[in-house]
Amino acid sequence: MNRGLVVALSGGVGGAKLALGLSRVLPPDELLIVANTGDDFEHLGLDISPDIDTLTYVLAGLDNIEQGWGRRDETWSFMATIASVGGADWFRLGDRDLALHVERTRRRHAGETLTQVTADITRRLGIEHRIRPMSDDRVRTRVLSDGGWLDFQDYFVRQQCRPVVRKLAFDGVATARPQPELMTALADRVRAVVICPSNPFISIEPILAVPGLRAAIEGCGAPVVAVSPIVDGKAVKGPTAKMMQELGLAVTSASVAERYGDLLDGYVVDRDDARGVRGKVHVAPTLMTTPADKEALARAVLAFADQLS
Amino acid sequence: MNRGLVVALSGGVGGAKLALGLSRVLPPDELLIVANTGDDFEHLGLDISPDIDTLTYVLAGLDNIEQGWGRRDETWSFMATIASVGGADWFRLGDRDLALHVERTRRRHAGETLTQVTADITRRLGIEHRIRPMSDDRVRTRVLSDGGWLDFQDYFVRQQCRPVVRKLAFDGVATARPQPELMTALADRVRAVVICPSNPFISIEPILAVPGLRAAIEGCGAPVVAVSPIVDGKAVKGPTAKMMQELGLAVTSASVAERYGDLLDGYVVDRDDARGVRGKVHVAPTLMTTPADKEALARAVLAFADQLS
Repeated sequence: MNRGLVVALSGGVGGAKLALGLSRVLPPDELLIVANTGDDFEHLGLDISPDIDTLTYVLAGLDNIEQGWGRRDETWSFMATIASVGGADWFRLGDRDLALHVERTRRRHAGETLTQVTADITRRLGIEHRIRPMSDDRVRTRVLSDGGWLDFQDYFVRQQCRPVVRKLAFDGVATARPQPELMTALADRVRAVVICPSNPFISIEPILAVPGLRAAIEGCGAPVVAVSPIVDGKAVKGPTAKMMQELGLAVTSASVAERYGDLLDGYVVDRDDARGVRGKVHVAPTLMTTPADKEALARAVLAFADQLS
Repeated sequence: MNRGLVVALSGGVGGAKLALGLSRVLPPDELLIVANTGDDFEHLGLDISPDIDTLTYVLAGLDNIEQGWGRRDETWSFMATIASVGGADWFRLGDRDLALHVERTRRRHAGETLTQVTADITRRLGIEHRIRPMSDDRVRTRVLSDGGWLDFQDYFVRQQCRPVVRKLAFDGVATARPQPELMTALADRVRAVVICPSNPFISIEPILAVPGLRAAIEGCGAPVVAVSPIVDGKAVKGPTAKMMQELGLAVTSASVAERYGDLLDGYVVDRDDARGVRGKVHVAPTLMTTPADKEALARAVLAFADQLS
């Protein structure tokens, strides 16, 4: 009955919407969600994995929908206090969210891998589907701006994406090993590889840059389908559009597809965004607001992939 | 104008009351508060120093008076969440309190000493008087009970002092070096050494066990005055009375004085507790409830010490 595995590559908020949709239409043994860890960083001595955590909260139904990030029912006493004892307060950590960071940091210092910690915590929070880091090794996205190289969260949160992006680099990626389950899965029966509607430069390309991973995706025989993060010439969320302009790319779905190049077998775009996209295109509403939207897009992406195979 | 330094040895809650009184009647350059660090422990990967923190919160006016420990205006979202991600929840850490532990842990991992971290954080919280750890080296109080040795916080918090205490040990104390300012201060002009009304076994004896410290106190030439933690045959707070019974001691002010032995030049006891105490005794109300009580006892202790010198 197993129709083969769907491997979904995802960053944070945008990608997590489709990952949630996929988790609602696929049983746990048919979905493997691969999270970008290039945004991970150490802050206040804690190991923080923003994309894993967003995926975790979204799939556990614990995400803060009004705020658009973090946990629901959050309180902010820690943040209200940290500066008074000399700590940095530019990255906002809610009191509940903090529990996850403290516990992950403790376990990683005790020798557990990010995979082990993530698997255990997601299971404890009631998530049956697998969320796995792209690698258990340290990869750190950095941004070259006019003033020099910036750590990703410095650029993204502290400087609120204001610096102009000239170039991106993924420190450590050359020696990072792909998360082992992922390589095993890609060598087995794969139904589709889905590239979620995340920022290509900072969410998907770090995953594809892990040595061996892109080749394993290309070689797995299953269709690779991306969902465009651009709707009507605008990024749904985050700095994707600004970053594209700064990198000299047109802010269109087509230029995201070009960026992925030969990797793609199919591309899912919103109604008015198909223009200029080469190759197999499927048009579907990609702006996911309700749970039904997420499920519908997940079904559409899978049906499109199945047609391509 | 400097009348010489008052060195106050203190544990947590009981001792901190007198330390606060002393801080209200002495200028910052005439008081050095030495905190027990035998209760310190690592929990959830964080460095926790309960007695330093109690002294810090009390002197900063941030203590939770109703609760009797911790910070005021506290919230508990972190604690409400930690178990759900697999963390231990038997030691209660408030969201605001957590900021101090996270920041201390970060700085100590970055190489700062406990003295440096404590000096900076107390200054940031508006405390002008010096609170210093007894040592920057690791000392850990352990409790021998019928089932074997227990870590102090396991005994004290997790098992709520239920195990019978047969013996106490201060792991690491043999190689611990006294906090350097303390040795310098004791070699200079000392007005008095005040032993605050803390538990002698778990708060004061770890301090006195740091090699060189007891000898420096004995040799400094200033009167050493203790305030009894026993009022009317009962401990004001905590397991002092239960521990004394288990160690085969009468629950009296006199037996605490005997425990300190030759170290004491004078002893301050409450109205009905002078019986059986050898040596110079001063009777004063030692049950400190209001700020005025704390100041009054501080003045009484200092006046008594000045008489003895």
